[in-house]
Amino acid sequence: MTAPRVDRSAGLARFSFNQATSMNWPLEEAVAACADAGVPGIGLWREPVGAYGVERAARLVRAAGLTVTSLCRGGFFTADDWRAENLRAIEEAATLDCPVLVLVSGGLPAGSRDLDGARQRVADAIAELAPHATAAGVRLAIEPLHPMFCSDRCVISTLGQALDIAERFETEAVGVVVDAYHVWWDDTVHQQIARAGERIAAFQVCDWITPLPEGVLLGRGLPGEGCIDLRGLRSAVDTTGYTGPIEVEVFHGDVWARPGREVLAASVEGYLRHVL
Amino acid sequence: MTAPRVDRSAGLARFSFNQATSMNWPLEEAVAACADAGVPGIGLWREPVGAYGVERAARLVRAAGLTVTSLCRGGFFTADDWRAENLRAIEEAATLDCPVLVLVSGGLPAGSRDLDGARQRVADAIAELAPHATAAGVRLAIEPLHPMFCSDRCVISTLGQALDIAERFETEAVGVVVDAYHVWWDDTVHQQIARAGERIAAFQVCDWITPLPEGVLLGRGLPGEGCIDLRGLRSAVDTTGYTGPIEVEVFHGDVWARPGREVLAASVEGYLRHVL
Repeated sequence: MTAPRVDRSAGLARFSFNQATSMNWPLEEAVAACADAGVPGIGLWREPVGAYGVERAARLVRAAGLTVTSLCRGGFFTADDWRAENLRAIEEAATLDCPVLVLVSGGLPAGSRDLDGARQRVADAIAELAPHATAAGVRLAIEPLHPMFCSDRCVISTLGQALDIAERFETEAVGVVVDAYHVWWDDTVHQQIARAGERIAAFQVCDWITPLPEGVLLGRGLPGEGCIDLRGLRSAVDTTGYTGPIEVEVFHGDVWARPGREVLAASVEGYLRHVL
Repeated sequence: MTAPRVDRSAGLARFSFNQATSMNWPLEEAVAACADAGVPGIGLWREPVGAYGVERAARLVRAAGLTVTSLCRGGFFTADDWRAENLRAIEEAATLDCPVLVLVSGGLPAGSRDLDGARQRVADAIAELAPHATAAGVRLAIEPLHPMFCSDRCVISTLGQALDIAERFETEAVGVVVDAYHVWWDDTVHQQIARAGERIAAFQVCDWITPLPEGVLLGRGLPGEGCIDLRGLRSAVDTTGYTGPIEVEVFHGDVWARPGREVLAASVEGYLRHVL
């Protein structure tokens, strides 16, 4: 008897590398490395893509045989120019053949304590954007962020809250992002994932490590480095019938300081060992 | 017509100063300053009280005419000696004539990803402690901590979760702590406060400010410095019929560096202007 062979390329069928995991890696190099590694998908961010050129990025990714699995991000609905910015983001997603635009809602306006009001404005903004997104063939995906970001980045703090808004719209128009880092602590997360069902537009993974750094943004671990039951969450997401991409998305200064190919390899390893 | 006079001493009737707000202030000075300022209550911590002497602290506080409104903290149920430590904490609360022992559950055991298991152990530990606490005339108060502390300090992350456990016991035996800092972001917090009703054993306030510092523990603002609708939460708590103390409890390095009397005065002002 021989040990079962791990079929690495089958294992990578749903893997996507979010470019923010290696934020300083030039897009051309990241795309080439993904193609070399048999990685089928890449998650992109508007700023680096805009700097490279959206049309040009679309051609680059297509030529490499990759799929853009998500575009980060629309949202930030408290900004004065939220409407124009989000319409531009929808257009960029369409140009990239990217089916999912991630929405991070933004926090409280400066000086405000009106959390309910801010949350209501998110729902109103999405109602305004949804027809434009649908017309462009792009699905809006509401991402709840960890409650530690509630005041300054995202007033949508739980999957349940994201679904409360998403469910006002057609399933195909507005979905949700399940990001393990943001929802793992929630004692209702398995129920909410089941409730989400076909609303799951994207699934992202990284790990929870402590101590959190100042500002708490760049404190994420590679899959397996922390305490999140990533396999359990992946299994719950799969149970809904979701067969889409699983993006590794890590923000950490130490990870950003490493060579891109090394980070991609570590992401793949973490994914195969701790997520799949 | 004259402007209504603010009755300052009536305004302070429910005010309590948590000693952790000025962590380096010697207990004798803090107690004397509270008495001078007409502050009726003080929240104590086990470590400084233990260093001063529990019996001695009880006499000091009693002689000053103050009430101990809460003792922080029992819990940390993942520690090897959790049982002995918590029995000792119950005894200390009784000695201090303190009706409420705050329980901070502790995080995940090192290397564990079993969050459900850790949460189950909290419920089991409380079941074991509750009869001892009741016999000592002390109420156990489960404190949900902000989800950013889930892995390393407290696996009880929401008021709803705390109530799910507390409700297994007699109302007088096990209650919950409503700390504005930990629960303000929760879109169900008003429902959960209403649900809590007579389970509310303590109500604590401070404010949410950003950026969070490294480790996120010492990042709290004085009432009014941040974005929490403290008056709204206080009103929700009062609506349940809660007439108990309202503790100002702030952890911040900058606040700890200020003279204790100045911090006490700032806490009183913040309370009168932003909570009451």
